[in-house]
This record gives sequence, C-alpha cells and structure tokens, in this order.
Amino acid sequence: MLSDITRPTLLIHYNIVMENLRKMFAKTQALGIPLRPHVKTHQNQAVANWMAEEGIDRITVSSLSMAVYFIRGGWNDVTLGFPFNIRETGEVNKLNRNVKLNLLVDQKSTVHYLGKYLEREVGLYIKVDTGSHRAGIPCEDTAALGEMTALIHRYPQLQFKGFLTHNGLCYQARGKEEVLKIHANALAQLASLKEAFPEAEISAGDTPSASLAEDFGVISELRPGNFMYYDLMQVQIGSCAPENIAIALACPVAALYPARREILIYGGAVHLSKESLDEDGRLHYGKAVRLVRGGWDTQGILGQVDRLSQEHGIIRVEGDWPELQVGELLGILPVHSCLTADLMRMENRILWP
Amino acid sequence: MLSDITRPTLLIHYNIVMENLRKMFAKTQALGIPLRPHVKTHQNQAVANWMAEEGIDRITVSSLSMAVYFIRGGWNDVTLGFPFNIRETGEVNKLNRNVKLNLLVDQKSTVHYLGKYLEREVGLYIKVDTGSHRAGIPCEDTAALGEMTALIHRYPQLQFKGFLTHNGLCYQARGKEEVLKIHANALAQLASLKEAFPEAEISAGDTPSASLAEDFGVISELRPGNFMYYDLMQVQIGSCAPENIAIALACPVAALYPARREILIYGGAVHLSKESLDEDGRLHYGKAVRLVRGGWDTQGILGQVDRLSQEHGIIRVEGDWPELQVGELLGILPVHSCLTADLMRMENRILWP
Repeated sequence: MLSDITRPTLLIHYNIVMENLRKMFAKTQALGIPLRPHVKTHQNQAVANWMAEEGIDRITVSSLSMAVYFIRGGWNDVTLGFPFNIRETGEVNKLNRNVKLNLLVDQKSTVHYLGKYLEREVGLYIKVDTGSHRAGIPCEDTAALGEMTALIHRYPQLQFKGFLTHNGLCYQARGKEEVLKIHANALAQLASLKEAFPEAEISAGDTPSASLAEDFGVISELRPGNFMYYDLMQVQIGSCAPENIAIALACPVAALYPARREILIYGGAVHLSKESLDEDGRLHYGKAVRLVRGGWDTQGILGQVDRLSQEHGIIRVEGDWPELQVGELLGILPVHSCLTADLMRMENRILWP
Repeated sequence: MLSDITRPTLLIHYNIVMENLRKMFAKTQALGIPLRPHVKTHQNQAVANWMAEEGIDRITVSSLSMAVYFIRGGWNDVTLGFPFNIRETGEVNKLNRNVKLNLLVDQKSTVHYLGKYLEREVGLYIKVDTGSHRAGIPCEDTAALGEMTALIHRYPQLQFKGFLTHNGLCYQARGKEEVLKIHANALAQLASLKEAFPEAEISAGDTPSASLAEDFGVISELRPGNFMYYDLMQVQIGSCAPENIAIALACPVAALYPARREILIYGGAVHLSKESLDEDGRLHYGKAVRLVRGGWDTQGILGQVDRLSQEHGIIRVEGDWPELQVGELLGILPVHSCLTADLMRMENRILWP
C-alpha cells in the first residue's frame, strides 16, 4: 500500500516491466538472437525471477558482486560485462563450478594473469570498441585482436567465445533515425570483424538500438538492460515513450513554496542520483507525476526536479499551481533508472496490477 | 591492508579527519559557539566515535533513518536538519524518549500535524531562508515567522528553540573573499532576525563559511558537516587545500589505453556519484592520485575522471604517461565527499597512522 510509505521508495510497476520485457524477448526470438539482459539496471532478484518465468535463462552483470548475488538467486549462465578486474580472481575461483561464467578482457596482462591464477573454466570475450572509447580494443585492429585470441588459446581454462561490444554512441543520438545511423555504423564494423574471425560470437546490445532497430547484422547475442525500466534519458533518445517507464520514486512532499512556485520533496541525490538531462537548455533530475491507483499519471507532469542536494529535491512547477498537501506522495520519473534503482535497492515496492 | 582490497573501497584517513575536526572544534570553542557537526557527510558510527572522544556531544542528521542509526550508536542530542516529513511521525514516536530531539519546520500544516500526532517532546526550529531558496521562510518575513512561533507555542510538546538556516549560496563562491561576502550578507539578515526575536537561538553552518570566517555574528550554534572529509568542490570554493581531503576511493585499474591516454578504473557512478565539477571549462568527476604508505599523494595528480558510467571510470591522463600496471589501485579524490561516502557505506576502510 502506498499509504505505508514513509520515505523515498522505488515503485516498480509489474505490468510495465513485463510489457517491456515481453516486447524485447519476442523481438529477439523472432530474430533468432538469444537475449541476455543486463541486470545492472534492476539488481533485483524478484524482477530477475519474472525474466526466468518468461524463459530467459542467461544474464549479464557489471560486477562480480552482482554475479554472486544473482548466482545465489539461481542463475547459472552469467556474463560479467566489465573488463575483468584481476584483483577479484580469488573470488571467481570460489564460485560454484557448475555456473557457466563468461568474462571480458581487453588487456594481454589480464589474460596472462587469468591463465596463471584462474582455477576454473570460463568463457572469454574480447571487448571491442566500435567508437564509444570507454573500453576495448579498436574493432578494426584485427592484428591486435588476433594476438589476443592466440594468447587466450594458450591457456586451457580460457575458452575463447568471441567479441563483445557496447555501442555507447547510441546514447548521444536524438531520435530513431540517428540511433539507426549510429547502429548501422557499428554493424558495418562488426561485419568486417566477423569476416576476419568467422567462428567468433558477436555480443552487443545497448538499449536504444535494441529498442529501435530491426536489423542486427552479424550480432549473435543481445545484452540490453535499461529497456526493462526505461527512463527519461531513453525518452529523450527516442527509445521509448514516457508511459513505458516502469519505475518511479515515491517521495513525500515536505514543503510547498507557492510564492516561488516550488515544491520541496524528501528525495535527493542519495535517492535519484545526480544524473541530469538537458531539456530546452535547462538541466533537470527527473519529472514529477501524480501517483494514482496502481501506478502514476505520465500525462500530467507537475514539473521538473530543478535542484537536488543530499536529501532535498526541489520541483519547479510548470503550469497551474497544483492542489497538493504537505505529506502527500509524488512520483518522480528518473533520468537514469539504473542509478536510481542502484541507490534504492534497500527501499522498493512492487506495484502489482 | 590495501593489498586485501579487491573492489572500489572508501579509504578514510584518520589523521586528516582528526586534524579537520580538531581545527573546527577548537575554533568554535574559542568563539564560544557550540559545534553540532552534520554527520550526513560520513554516516559512519566509527567516525562519529572519534567526534565523541574529542568531546562533541551533539549531532545534526538529514534523515530520520540517520537519526535512528546514530541514536543506536549512543548519541542522545540530535537535530534533524530537514523540514520534517510528517509521514515519519509514527517512527519519531517510537524513538527513545531520553534522546533530545530537535526537528525543523517551515510549514504551518506540519506544526498542526505534529501538535496533533506527536507523542513526545521535541525541540522545534523554524527553517529560515537567507537566500539559497532551498527550504525555509524568508528570513526577513518576521510576520510569517511570528505566526509560526505563536503556532508552535500552542502545542505543549513542541518547544520552540529558534531559527535554523543553511547558507547554500556559499557553495557558489570561489575564494575566501567571496565566501566572506556572502556570509556577511547572511549575518546581517540573521542580526535583524535576532533583533525581532531576541530569545531565539540561531543555528547555522555551511562548511565554506565555517572554515573561512572568524566572525559569526548572532549565530549561536554551528552545524557544518563536509569539513570532516572535505573534497574537490571545497578546494574549488577555497574552504580547504587538497591535502585536507580526508577520503579517497581506492579503485583497481582494469585497463590501460596509452594510445588515447586514458585509464579504465573499476569505479563508476555507483561508487563516486555523478557529482561533477567544472574546472577550466571541462567537467570531471574526481582526480586520480597514487596510493602511498598510509595515505595518498596529493602532489602528483595523474589525471581527472573524465567520464563515468555505472561501474566504469575513465581517467584522462595529464602530463607524462604514468608507470602503472593493470591490477594496481589508484585513489580518486571525490568531487563531493558526502555523496561518495553515502554510496560506499558498505565498503570502507580506515587508514590508521
């Protein structure tokens, strides 16, 4: 019950999550591309169980701690999609050997280290960079990639699987056309890669292209994560509509300042994160909506979260001053659901239909 | 031991914390103004114990959950410096009655609600706004403030204490002179307020003015919090020097990209927060330093954290390419220590001398 909520609480809308999940899963099944959702977005075993009930049997995580949490929850096919941190090798050695674990590398020294100290079999992906310059070996550098595969083959416990990429450039796009253009550029790079290494798998999957594209070229596995919750950033990119956003932060109204047309909510940077979005030249940290029976009303945006401090959020009211009482709950649609969900792991509530 | 660290871990430097704490405490004692540190910065009972050992007997918190945590740790004089959220009234009623608790209000409806439903005595401060427009009744609106005090006096369990402010404008200052100018403006407003309400206490205390000013006018209590750890934002404001920063995030180096002069660390937005700082026209999320025996070397900044995603941090190297191995630990000086410490509450390590 919403009436039990006393402090900032993440509302997870079952119906919207399932709609997002089923749509993406149906699409990948129709394409014949396995879906390995990135669970960093929700970090929630209850939500992961809904994935399992739909028939999803593999996940991506972004940290070993997250892998441990989901393996404990019953998942046994896990890809750790972050260039492996060799300081955690001992912890990997302690994981249940029956779990299929894939790691990611882009440094020769990491491969040597794993070859020397890893005491279990793992699948190994080489991280390739298709232009976002976060991590990875440049996709076109087939010489360096060839050396890495050769190096991996020297160690019997390292099973070379293929190449993995995340096309972060899609996050800079505004609108479907731009996303598809950036996606097409990555597909072309991956096609050349596949030509050079015909046996290798190609794992990819940012939420914008996974949501908007129909053609995935040589991609043999998709790993989007954000699509399960979506957020205002994805709305701005064009990956989804506001009504596809599956979470909202319920925040108590602490004070009303009609003279300056602002509302103070209990809900700040430690709940929403300081991820911001530039809309019409002004940064904001989320949008305020009314909570209604079983969900929230994305049609009537009360205003944007204009400023955030540790626990304070200031909403700048747009349009008429709303009828609102101190002590009511408002919903905040987050700019970046992964960061909000990470902060609110201890305080969340599932809204059943 | 640093060698035990496998993932992002907050290092808390005992000597620097104590130096910051003793300096501020000695200053307030010399001025005869009680110090009530804001513990939202560290949220750590071990660090709070160091405060108690120095003779500090009162704290400020920014949430009721934080109050509960520190009361459990033995603190019995606590001010909740956030406009009271009436949905938590039931939880306040359950707190130990022997704890002196002060709450904050700026809404009449909240006073009425507390008058009706609060089952224990509390001290009550009225939040006044000296220009930062986050929360509070405008400091010059003595009519509205008079009405609030009269309203509070109607309820026997509400003990009117005085006025409380946080001069957030000081955070926009660059350099001591600007901080002191903004501080003087607030002091003038508070002096008029004190004239109108001579019996009222005046509680104030942002870290910049608490660090830099010598004159506190009518202020009868100081509540800075950030000064215990400081951070790069405070260095930019001019409140402290880089060597006064008492925490650093230890992050494993996951990959080296000398061709683009960048380093990938395991340490992202879920560890540092997305608080950024504009320095010379470029945003960054922290600065990388070498960890050395018992601390870190603020003399040699390796580079700035240029980009952050959920778990990835990208350091842009300045100057010569450093000698560095994958798997080493780097320290990151945070932009905003309160947010980093909040994120890292479960993963921290105290560096003893």
